[in-house]
Amino acid sequence: MNPLLIHTLRQAVGPAHVLTPDDPDTDLVAWEQDWRRRARGRALAVVRPASTAEVAAVVKACAAANVSIVPQGGNTGLVVGSVPDDSGTQVVLSLTRMQAIRALDGDNLTITVEAGCVLQTVQEAADRAGFLFPLSLAAEGSCTLGGNLATNAGGTQVVRYGNARELCLGLEVVTAQGEVWHGLSGLRKDNTGYDLRDLFIGSEGTLGIITAATMKLYPRPAAQLTAWAAVPNLEAAVALLGLAHGHLGAGLTGFEVMGRFALGLVARHMPQLRVPFIDQADIPYGVLLENSDSESEAHARAQFERLLETAFEQGLVSDAVVAENLQQAHGLWHIRESIPLAQAEEGLNIKHDISLPVSRIPAFCADTDALLAREIPGVRLVNFGHLGDGNLHYNVQAPAEGDPKAFLAEHETRVNHLVFDQVLQFGGSISAEHGIGSLKAATLPHYKDPVALALMRTLKQALDPHNLLNPGRVLSAPPP
Amino acid sequence: MNPLLIHTLRQAVGPAHVLTPDDPDTDLVAWEQDWRRRARGRALAVVRPASTAEVAAVVKACAAANVSIVPQGGNTGLVVGSVPDDSGTQVVLSLTRMQAIRALDGDNLTITVEAGCVLQTVQEAADRAGFLFPLSLAAEGSCTLGGNLATNAGGTQVVRYGNARELCLGLEVVTAQGEVWHGLSGLRKDNTGYDLRDLFIGSEGTLGIITAATMKLYPRPAAQLTAWAAVPNLEAAVALLGLAHGHLGAGLTGFEVMGRFALGLVARHMPQLRVPFIDQADIPYGVLLENSDSESEAHARAQFERLLETAFEQGLVSDAVVAENLQQAHGLWHIRESIPLAQAEEGLNIKHDISLPVSRIPAFCADTDALLAREIPGVRLVNFGHLGDGNLHYNVQAPAEGDPKAFLAEHETRVNHLVFDQVLQFGGSISAEHGIGSLKAATLPHYKDPVALALMRTLKQALDPHNLLNPGRVLSAPPP
Repeated sequence: MNPLLIHTLRQAVGPAHVLTPDDPDTDLVAWEQDWRRRARGRALAVVRPASTAEVAAVVKACAAANVSIVPQGGNTGLVVGSVPDDSGTQVVLSLTRMQAIRALDGDNLTITVEAGCVLQTVQEAADRAGFLFPLSLAAEGSCTLGGNLATNAGGTQVVRYGNARELCLGLEVVTAQGEVWHGLSGLRKDNTGYDLRDLFIGSEGTLGIITAATMKLYPRPAAQLTAWAAVPNLEAAVALLGLAHGHLGAGLTGFEVMGRFALGLVARHMPQLRVPFIDQADIPYGVLLENSDSESEAHARAQFERLLETAFEQGLVSDAVVAENLQQAHGLWHIRESIPLAQAEEGLNIKHDISLPVSRIPAFCADTDALLAREIPGVRLVNFGHLGDGNLHYNVQAPAEGDPKAFLAEHETRVNHLVFDQVLQFGGSISAEHGIGSLKAATLPHYKDPVALALMRTLKQALDPHNLLNPGRVLSAPPP
Repeated sequence: MNPLLIHTLRQAVGPAHVLTPDDPDTDLVAWEQDWRRRARGRALAVVRPASTAEVAAVVKACAAANVSIVPQGGNTGLVVGSVPDDSGTQVVLSLTRMQAIRALDGDNLTITVEAGCVLQTVQEAADRAGFLFPLSLAAEGSCTLGGNLATNAGGTQVVRYGNARELCLGLEVVTAQGEVWHGLSGLRKDNTGYDLRDLFIGSEGTLGIITAATMKLYPRPAAQLTAWAAVPNLEAAVALLGLAHGHLGAGLTGFEVMGRFALGLVARHMPQLRVPFIDQADIPYGVLLENSDSESEAHARAQFERLLETAFEQGLVSDAVVAENLQQAHGLWHIRESIPLAQAEEGLNIKHDISLPVSRIPAFCADTDALLAREIPGVRLVNFGHLGDGNLHYNVQAPAEGDPKAFLAEHETRVNHLVFDQVLQFGGSISAEHGIGSLKAATLPHYKDPVALALMRTLKQALDPHNLLNPGRVLSAPPP
């Protein structure tokens, strides 16, 4: 139990904000269980500091006691990276009480936010001030900005605005030694030494604890239009993407592709949603495009129509609809966002979050579809994703017949190997936007450049020599 | 002289590509002297490998001999970061023979280039393939992409496309141990561990040697228009910037501000250039705006006119011209780019490359102008820069009367302190785009967050424990 540490932690953050498993009134499940309920660990304690100074005090206390720390935001991660292991010896450091918006600077187009602030709250604060904060993803109502940065979150607007990394200008970080790096710069240019910011971003809490960040804002577009295009194959989808870049420039803020089988699941399990062109059996892919315009809706529509006309003429698109109003646009996006749920309704499946050079996606899919069909008969592919960023959720659904649980038990590891080997061969990444966490930590060494992996271990050893911060996440225990 | 090392180097890269000072036919000045001729060092040898494997062999040979390496691209840096010191014991590793364009992937919007490729060559290759590579700066005819990345170069289009860092997707790097990290990814999303790429970018050759990079391409805009606006003060310039962001969105690809005194120097020393509104004594600032449009020139012009009309109505602009054609546009940009030369014609001056939050620039300038006028009578301020990125070249010209050399000898250190202290107070950076090199290495510790500086030293020690790569640059020798 470590009563001395608990005592020090209670002094640091106040007794009400140190939760321990021995308290019969407290259920720690919200902090101990991961979002997708794959793992439930046991915490020594859950500590909820309210300020950067308190975070630093917690880290120092844990370091002195040689107790490791699992930093946690909204706990919505998909790779089991923010819950304790089952040893009962780790402290969960929850950032959710640090949720202030410290500053919004319109002239500088920046917002400075504490790590525990919920993403949607940041979006709303920006909107109220007349600006756009473009990071947007399914968990935005629960996930925190600190977690978004720790995992370098992606989402639906990356094709225009980049990942969380690209939206960040400065950080405040508590190091593994409990020191505070005051790096909350709102500068677009700063060449005074090594890029510490990007080292902490995406390190999943293993190198330091992000306590606040200064993020970029953008002017709010005057209009946003959504279109749905039926495309004959993935080659055409890639060509349509190039055409859209050329026609819309930075107006292209979304480009999603969805395979027919994925859309069929939505149509089957959510019949109230009207999936465009689903009755036309010869349309293998749908593409969702979003055009954000700084001028007007009329201009956005004219641009969209010109693009789609050209695409028709070139045979890239066989049919298309442009949403008439915001409600229709939301409806189209809702279909896209319902694919994961429709998949779950259909039954168990094996999920992948891969990325590839956009140019190689058609060949990758043709090759890998064939390989899986050959190796694992009956397999069904739920292929969809952010084509604009080369990011596919290339998921594998158990065959329609038979026991899906038995299928997963028998085939999951093999399917992962087959898909990841293909990803490696086509120059891709086995984790595009979800990260490594503990789920993929043992897999990573098989697919990462060995020099890169050695450099990562060197950096971890240098910045956190006692392996106190989120140990075993990203980097598995080194070979003995 | 170290004959054994020279022998090994000759074996590694071929005898013709190891230049030594004892060869009477060879003048090493091009490699030993910095661009602005502030320092001339002496090299043990200049080595010119032609491949990544040869770079690795050179690094291994130098490491074995405990000889330090100064990586060098086009040697156009402004902070004395790429020339050897005067000890005669350092090897200059020139990347200029590695200049292949390895791949251009139009569908993926990427180009993969070796470090020694001249920036303009990259721009031209992109252009020939129908794309834009937007990194652009004064030295583009001589500087190399590897140097641009090692120094995280900025330039004139940062307001839209970011610095060199933001344009890079993947790197190939030779480490201080002579290992090769194969990280030439063309991926927009890859969350498989720590961000090594951004650690090497901007590290000025002190952590590893960049040998190749995969960079982003963009669709070529359909039209590019330039305007020149007369603005009554810096507050109006900042407000005009916000208005331009809102009206043009990502179309805003350039936003430069130029003070009246800076423009007056151009008018005086380059009378053939016609500086707009220079005869109107009551115009303190000129602003250069660039609008890149994915649609058409007519549309770009209409957008520009709407923006300028609104700016007139709001009193932000008192007069403006929009270039009628490409030639006029080049003429306007040429005036902006001639300021450094006009300054040199006027005589000696003290240069700064600072950045600030855009919102704080008016107060910074008012405060610092007054401070300098009070502390150093007669001082003349040449203020211009990339206002869109908060980057000012806030330069100080010696008084019109008196000996400028004596002025600099007496006042340079004090002027730097005054300006940098102000920068610190206003939340800025003492080096926006030029880097630290050896010129600012001793200054940096006074202005950098101490925790950041300690983290930088930890990283340097971890990645280059024997201090072989560009020692003394960025980080000065640690206190004994």
